[in-house]
Amino acid sequence: MKWEENVRRVEPYIPGEQPKEANVIKLNTNECPYPPAPGVREKLRQMDADSLRLYPDTSIGELAKELCTYYGVLPEQLFIGVGSDDVLSMAFLTFFHSDKPILFPDITYSFYDVWAELYRIPYELQPLDDRFFIRKEDYFKPNGGIIIPNPNAPTGVFEEVGIMEEIIAANRESVVIIDEAYIDFGGESCLRLIDKYDNLLIVQTFSKSRAMAGMRIGFAMGNPKLISYLQDAKFSFNSYTMNTPSILLGAEAVKDKEYFKETSEKIINTRENTKLRLKEMGFSFPDSKGNFIFAAHEKIPAKEIFTALKEKNIFVRYWDKPRIGNYLRISIGTPEEMDVLIENLKGVVEHGDIY
Amino acid sequence: MKWEENVRRVEPYIPGEQPKEANVIKLNTNECPYPPAPGVREKLRQMDADSLRLYPDTSIGELAKELCTYYGVLPEQLFIGVGSDDVLSMAFLTFFHSDKPILFPDITYSFYDVWAELYRIPYELQPLDDRFFIRKEDYFKPNGGIIIPNPNAPTGVFEEVGIMEEIIAANRESVVIIDEAYIDFGGESCLRLIDKYDNLLIVQTFSKSRAMAGMRIGFAMGNPKLISYLQDAKFSFNSYTMNTPSILLGAEAVKDKEYFKETSEKIINTRENTKLRLKEMGFSFPDSKGNFIFAAHEKIPAKEIFTALKEKNIFVRYWDKPRIGNYLRISIGTPEEMDVLIENLKGVVEHGDIY
Repeated sequence: MKWEENVRRVEPYIPGEQPKEANVIKLNTNECPYPPAPGVREKLRQMDADSLRLYPDTSIGELAKELCTYYGVLPEQLFIGVGSDDVLSMAFLTFFHSDKPILFPDITYSFYDVWAELYRIPYELQPLDDRFFIRKEDYFKPNGGIIIPNPNAPTGVFEEVGIMEEIIAANRESVVIIDEAYIDFGGESCLRLIDKYDNLLIVQTFSKSRAMAGMRIGFAMGNPKLISYLQDAKFSFNSYTMNTPSILLGAEAVKDKEYFKETSEKIINTRENTKLRLKEMGFSFPDSKGNFIFAAHEKIPAKEIFTALKEKNIFVRYWDKPRIGNYLRISIGTPEEMDVLIENLKGVVEHGDIY
Repeated sequence: MKWEENVRRVEPYIPGEQPKEANVIKLNTNECPYPPAPGVREKLRQMDADSLRLYPDTSIGELAKELCTYYGVLPEQLFIGVGSDDVLSMAFLTFFHSDKPILFPDITYSFYDVWAELYRIPYELQPLDDRFFIRKEDYFKPNGGIIIPNPNAPTGVFEEVGIMEEIIAANRESVVIIDEAYIDFGGESCLRLIDKYDNLLIVQTFSKSRAMAGMRIGFAMGNPKLISYLQDAKFSFNSYTMNTPSILLGAEAVKDKEYFKETSEKIINTRENTKLRLKEMGFSFPDSKGNFIFAAHEKIPAKEIFTALKEKNIFVRYWDKPRIGNYLRISIGTPEEMDVLIENLKGVVEHGDIY
């Protein structure tokens, strides 16, 4: 068809499977194994259906207010979007507009190169070392922007704030985005650096620690100038991205600090316990600070374990890609789910229980 | 700041005001004056808050199923997004990728040129005639794509399907998008043409006739090839744009055909009645098929009426722009709201009741 000549062709990102069967143990997309805060359920019950006829609050007021209070930032330092994917995509479009390549790790969130391709942004991968850490010197050269996830995914590796600060300080002519999707599971946020560095954007999400992947809420924090450019881009795209339920329910999730702390700690404990059990079985892995473990077995190829687990309705994530093709990314579920996982893993690695 | 050199600067779209006061008559953003279908309220009460911890269904299954049934299209002929703004923006990005200019009317939805600027798409405005109709010959020249709203906004003018078909047929080498945001208020949809023309994309929304502006749901229908390009673009941007409540509540809104028909008819009746009353008062306007009327008064400038109404807490829309600077776009509210509007308008135009 002739009109196809004018189509922008892109290679889409492929998200993890969303199996629809009931009896599944779902450890493949790093969701929270616990429900959202009780106040979210309460608010859902009380929500006024009639008000849905009206456009949502463009200022995202109620949710913004709670986030500003929780993180101690000003409204003009905060940007909210439809999941951190929306926020990151908008940030790529807005800030990575140079002819020089942007820089990010070779093993990382696989959406980064998809956005770069979509917006025709040149990019250059910086190889992680053998232990999956970044080499900070890789980020000391001319560039059109930098994005680093901390902790990194799918590795779980956390880089100290001091190292991140060196990179931010060495790149005052570029915007440095730190994707902190997994920061609430034991890492330390670089948020406190936003007042010191006007080129720093911190991005976080409600999909992991706040148990609201289904609501699609992400946010960015940075100096007011950065944020205002993001707002302009957003208002050039879609004035009302956040629907009314996401604003109201999101606000409730942030209000309950105790519940947030408690579920994050439960997940950290389960992760540390799972590490011990995996090690005993002959798995090795970088020391994850995420809500997942990126593990390789000493004898059995990851692909075989992945397939064997899937046969048992246990979903983990596997990428058939160079350098990571022998690893599984296992999300941290409830202690009970991890028991079932460990039992099945034992079947596979100790008794060759492979179909 | 040095990083600003690499920022993509854009001129954002400015949406209509969302006044927060209670006692306001809001006739400025073409929302539905009636609440969403009763099933929506029901579903909101029953929704499982715990399930919000999981990512939404990427296939948007339940909502897609209802839309396919209602409109008689296949799943592969349907694309769903975060309001029709998201759908249209994605379609601009995907289909308008030529060096030739895209074409659209000079008086139209003011987001079109914003998207064109955002994505660096060349465009050429085609002037409407004195009665605000398009001149179809304007669209018979080489172009990189065409977008026409039908009915047009803010004029309300509806173009016959035959005229639209001539334009579509004359442009088989471009994608022609028909923005049917206001089609449910008496116009005839071009939907039946999608099987005949592979270059035709129809875009509609839940924000007007389906009373769900607060949920942010829009959709496009076209041949499977067009739709698959849109899906690729969407999955390159954000895999999960529709949150779980929008999928579940949206499905309920589509299920209730009776309620939909009934509210649309009520709005049409109120519009026709309002036309008569406006005419009596010395207003003139194109014959609107939208849920609004685009009216100019024979004596009093629109800007003065706009300000006088605002003083009385009645919000209508006004643009201080060439060719339309003497018009007000008045959304159709309930009969009671229109009574208050008419009374206040009388005060202004008959008794010079201007502050």
